[in-house]
Amino acid sequence: MTLNNFVFQNPTKIYFGPNQLENLPDEIKKFGLRVMLTYGGGSIKKTGLFDKVKTVLENAGMTVIEFGGIEPNPRHTTVNRGVALCKKENIDVLLAVGGGSTIDCTKVIAAARYYDGDAWDLVIHKAPIGQVMPLLTVLTLAATGSEMDEFAVISNMDTNEKLGLGDEKLRPKVSFLDPTNTYTVSAFQTAAGSADIIAHIFDVCYFSRNEKMYMLDMLMESVLKTVVRYAPIALQEPTNYEARANLMWASTWALNGFLSGGRGQATTCHAIEHELSAFYDITHGLGLAIIMPRWMEYVLDEKSAPDFKKFGVNVFGLPSNVSDMDGALAAISRFKKFLYEELHLQSSLSELKIDDTHFAAMARKACRDDVIHGYRDLAPADVENILRKCL
Amino acid sequence: MTLNNFVFQNPTKIYFGPNQLENLPDEIKKFGLRVMLTYGGGSIKKTGLFDKVKTVLENAGMTVIEFGGIEPNPRHTTVNRGVALCKKENIDVLLAVGGGSTIDCTKVIAAARYYDGDAWDLVIHKAPIGQVMPLLTVLTLAATGSEMDEFAVISNMDTNEKLGLGDEKLRPKVSFLDPTNTYTVSAFQTAAGSADIIAHIFDVCYFSRNEKMYMLDMLMESVLKTVVRYAPIALQEPTNYEARANLMWASTWALNGFLSGGRGQATTCHAIEHELSAFYDITHGLGLAIIMPRWMEYVLDEKSAPDFKKFGVNVFGLPSNVSDMDGALAAISRFKKFLYEELHLQSSLSELKIDDTHFAAMARKACRDDVIHGYRDLAPADVENILRKCL
Repeated sequence: MTLNNFVFQNPTKIYFGPNQLENLPDEIKKFGLRVMLTYGGGSIKKTGLFDKVKTVLENAGMTVIEFGGIEPNPRHTTVNRGVALCKKENIDVLLAVGGGSTIDCTKVIAAARYYDGDAWDLVIHKAPIGQVMPLLTVLTLAATGSEMDEFAVISNMDTNEKLGLGDEKLRPKVSFLDPTNTYTVSAFQTAAGSADIIAHIFDVCYFSRNEKMYMLDMLMESVLKTVVRYAPIALQEPTNYEARANLMWASTWALNGFLSGGRGQATTCHAIEHELSAFYDITHGLGLAIIMPRWMEYVLDEKSAPDFKKFGVNVFGLPSNVSDMDGALAAISRFKKFLYEELHLQSSLSELKIDDTHFAAMARKACRDDVIHGYRDLAPADVENILRKCL
Repeated sequence: MTLNNFVFQNPTKIYFGPNQLENLPDEIKKFGLRVMLTYGGGSIKKTGLFDKVKTVLENAGMTVIEFGGIEPNPRHTTVNRGVALCKKENIDVLLAVGGGSTIDCTKVIAAARYYDGDAWDLVIHKAPIGQVMPLLTVLTLAATGSEMDEFAVISNMDTNEKLGLGDEKLRPKVSFLDPTNTYTVSAFQTAAGSADIIAHIFDVCYFSRNEKMYMLDMLMESVLKTVVRYAPIALQEPTNYEARANLMWASTWALNGFLSGGRGQATTCHAIEHELSAFYDITHGLGLAIIMPRWMEYVLDEKSAPDFKKFGVNVFGLPSNVSDMDGALAAISRFKKFLYEELHLQSSLSELKIDDTHFAAMARKACRDDVIHGYRDLAPADVENILRKCL
């Protein structure tokens, strides 16, 4: 077996660090003067970031139209509202100021702007993605990597579906990553975002059936170690620049395509979590934190044990002079301690008052009438078993 | 002190792996049908790569004009000849098939195509870089990183100058990285290329005065470890795909900008080596291999010792329970063993029959009437001392 071939390109421009917003008007002007500024629940109004962005754009002669209220697990109905405003206001360019939900929603607005119909059609591939509006971002949460990737995840609460779509054209043109904009992120959201970063490395694809490339394995472990080191520090000291900067750049790297070279995607844990969020609207990173160790336990066998042991040794510094199986069990145990004790994330679905009522339906949907292809292919019965382990 | 801000963007598209040349015509056609195929000493004719590339282009209806004979340490006179042919043949797009020298020369041809005058003017910044022709590459040597960076280095043997220039527009549009194209690279060139990769990490900028980002430090060490692991394997087994693939991707990463975030450039060893190549036309990577450990010895003090020790511990796995100074000395010693025993590179200038005749002039030129700014600023006297240590 040899390494898979791959194609890699990521033209998104990144401004990293504080006080770079002065460059925002010039970057936006390349695409036009009528800007729709999208955001979420309004925390950026409290922190002053909204005013700062709006002022810098208006001082540069731009017209800023607001589109706020984008929810976590953004809805297709919100996308449709955004598209309507975009058309009505004859918008040239979109600027998402927020975390992954705001950026994801804005990406699909950008695509649906040129589609006459329900934006959901694009998400379910009923209609192809054609022209896409230019999109820039100002990131406020280290988590999804949406600031430099080609993906968006949208939820339809009518059908309990949370689905991802990917298209090169959805990639932001420019993203502003100022770690100080994450100083006000709560401990819970910081922890959940950190779990999300880890899940991206897991799923795309540290744990892979394909032949691995030594260099990329080490790079992935470096990003994982960065999260393991700095997430607890950011919880203790929310304004620690070093911690926030490392977490922010780690979130971008985890999913910008640099690390996955040739391994394809194996988004096993993500596929399962999307069902949890679709049915119960929980925080994505929290769902992932509950699922990941149980997924590891479920797929643990002689074949996967060396990989899990390696994760424990290389990321958590666990001893290597033990058997593969003992090393794997130690790694899972240490990973749980990290998620549930050091990051203080809830450790079970029961704590979220989620029971097994919808497990069968969720498992069927996660597999989409097939199996989830990944490190280990999972059939609906497997997914249901993993969910039961999460109770 | 806080991390430096930075701007990052690298839109070069990479096709990685064997048998991807079928995509070459479509990528080139975006820019035109008249292609100038540039190459070096003709090894690509011996290996069959030249015919393969030419055939795939001609079968797609393109006109291929040859421009061969680009030398190692490519000359400005060669650039000028390339520009003349380009104009005469009304070329739309350039395709460099070779290593760093071929690609660097082609980059400056691309820039000088729209400049009426000696291409050297662009190198010495006498004239600004304006429009630049589109350029693609098929890489045959893991070394310079030119396949995904914005730099080119050109030599003027009349004035004994070897100078680099950098411009975003010089970046290749697309590069084809097929590790099997490096199977025929000689042991010496493989070793020299590996030293070059290490030097890029050293100079841009593992050893930095600026505040460091933990994640990037680990990423750089990962690339260094990749070279340390696979260069000796590639020497022993030239057709080991895993070794060639890791070295090739490492060469690209070492200088594509991803790893340097905010540290600026501190190309100390490169600045010194360029003088060696300019005066004696030696292989760039070999010159770097001779200089790097002597540079470390020269700048070793209480301040640099922890950094050098860290290099030894994290890259070569040396013991960490020693003093900083002992750890630093052990790291330098281990690094020399790697370069001169495991990679079999020559270890001194005397072996290359280079004496101190021109050291004073070289030192002055390396400093360009100033000092070389870097991890430690170096005045001409420092450079001369370092060169003497290389004898």
